[in-house]
Amino acid sequence: MEFIYLLDILGTFAFAISGALVASEQKFDLFGVVIIAFVTAVGGGMLRDILINAHPINWIGDLNYIYIIFAAVLATFLFKSKILPLYKTLFLFDTVGISVFTLLGLQKGLTFDLHPLVALIMGMFSAVFGGVLRDVLTNKVPLIFEKEIYASACLAGGVSYLILNYIEIPKDYNFIISASIIIIVRLIAVKFHLQLPKIKDDIFGNNE
Amino acid sequence: MEFIYLLDILGTFAFAISGALVASEQKFDLFGVVIIAFVTAVGGGMLRDILINAHPINWIGDLNYIYIIFAAVLATFLFKSKILPLYKTLFLFDTVGISVFTLLGLQKGLTFDLHPLVALIMGMFSAVFGGVLRDVLTNKVPLIFEKEIYASACLAGGVSYLILNYIEIPKDYNFIISASIIIIVRLIAVKFHLQLPKIKDDIFGNNE
Amino acid sequence: MEFIYLLDILGTFAFAISGALVASEQKFDLFGVVIIAFVTAVGGGMLRDILINAHPINWIGDLNYIYIIFAAVLATFLFKSKILPLYKTLFLFDTVGISVFTLLGLQKGLTFDLHPLVALIMGMFSAVFGGVLRDVLTNKVPLIFEKEIYASACLAGGVSYLILNYIEIPKDYNFIISASIIIIVRLIAVKFHLQLPKIKDDIFGNNE
Repeated sequence: MEFIYLLDILGTFAFAISGALVASEQKFDLFGVVIIAFVTAVGGGMLRDILINAHPINWIGDLNYIYIIFAAVLATFLFKSKILPLYKTLFLFDTVGISVFTLLGLQKGLTFDLHPLVALIMGMFSAVFGGVLRDVLTNKVPLIFEKEIYASACLAGGVSYLILNYIEIPKDYNFIISASIIIIVRLIAVKFHLQLPKIKDDIFGNNE
Repeated sequence: MEFIYLLDILGTFAFAISGALVASEQKFDLFGVVIIAFVTAVGGGMLRDILINAHPINWIGDLNYIYIIFAAVLATFLFKSKILPLYKTLFLFDTVGISVFTLLGLQKGLTFDLHPLVALIMGMFSAVFGGVLRDVLTNKVPLIFEKEIYASACLAGGVSYLILNYIEIPKDYNFIISASIIIIVRLIAVKFHLQLPKIKDDIFGNNE
Repeated sequence: MEFIYLLDILGTFAFAISGALVASEQKFDLFGVVIIAFVTAVGGGMLRDILINAHPINWIGDLNYIYIIFAAVLATFLFKSKILPLYKTLFLFDTVGISVFTLLGLQKGLTFDLHPLVALIMGMFSAVFGGVLRDVLTNKVPLIFEKEIYASACLAGGVSYLILNYIEIPKDYNFIISASIIIIVRLIAVKFHLQLPKIKDDIFGNNE
């Protein structure tokens, strides 16, 4: 669907901007900023495609990903101070991106005849691993492991997609419904600071 | 062999527990714990399969890996303070896991017609890289690079397997003998705090 | 071309030495030193081959890479204090290595019918990612993201290769010319401490 492709590109743009901002905070030079923007934007889909042996992998098979990443870096470079007040807009793009990445990854997994559980994992990797790679390359503990951000939202939307797919809801409707679930769960989680539980006992068996 | 498969699953369980414990020490949330347990348990075999182009890769081709990882995380989550006193049992499972991972990885390499040296490296990657990925994702220097833990044990067992294979000892006997070597070398190394040598001169050429 | 292969091996040797030196500074044991030398030397080409699905990947298809890495680690281990005064020679090997890695990676990309832009990226990954992996595994922010080292040199030589290739300059001449450009640009950049620009505004929009 043309419309979903557009959302995919929009999400890639938002992810690339977020990567470029993190890299520039770290005083990376232009090359470093490009690499981090690149990895953040296409890293999740790249990992998915390597794991399921889907060649050419995402950004090799479609140059638009590269172009939109360069555009995002250029935008960050030229207008950084003007981009930051757009935080809410970016956050929205980002949320849309996450929902689209999750569902496209899951669909791709199903197309490759993977077990639904594996397809679900592929959907989540697609949405999450770009940020993980960004954090590893900037020498941080991946944010998403410490604090609920959007993993549960992806999970909820992915499970919804699998169920609706099983009862044979048409793909396009399913996509829209499940993407909405991801977006809504994420917005609610951010609004109310919801977090996943942690394992409470420390290594010495004491409660904190 | 059914029995070796069972040991493989047991080793995966022990690796997943070790990953879950490290992640929960770091105050990761449930999602982070699952990912670290997952990466620790199947990361080595996953890397091996990507490198030698063996698709479907380990956990995609056999869902039991995923189930056992979930079971390990659940066990850690529910019984953490009870798991820690089981340290010695876990250490034994872990040692068994390492020996099985090494030899299964090596065998897979030979099946793919790799040079014995490359197959040996694949065996070691299978045993070692899960822990390396765990440490990278939790933003630590990989433990195994600093301190002899089990790399030499894997090497000894792997070389033994190649030699016994060359003189045509039947596979199953070979597996048991070489696995025993790995287990014994590791237990001895831990018992006597054996370490590999380090490069002594520092970067300025002084001795320490 | 035999001669280029020789330069490739020479570059691999220089990269492995640099990895071994970094690892021994970190007090890694022999196993850790071997792994870091290995990753530094063949990591870039390995990533490239995984991304473009070129199997067997570099060091699996040609054992000479492994042998030369072992030789480099052995040399570091035995002669560390004598290697360091050879810094300038090593730096020259390293620069030659970078130029050869970039162009071989780019050529491989073109052989695989990739778009020239993607082939260029593959060339740069080949030259750059070994060092990135080395830094990630030693828990540092990758040096190349913070400070111009050789990314621009690779880019200049890669673009030169593509242009000369487009106007049908014979491959061998093209290789020599473009490699020389990489070497010269790098030597000039190091000589005059040239750096790429950074994004100046910090995250709060203030100038520094």
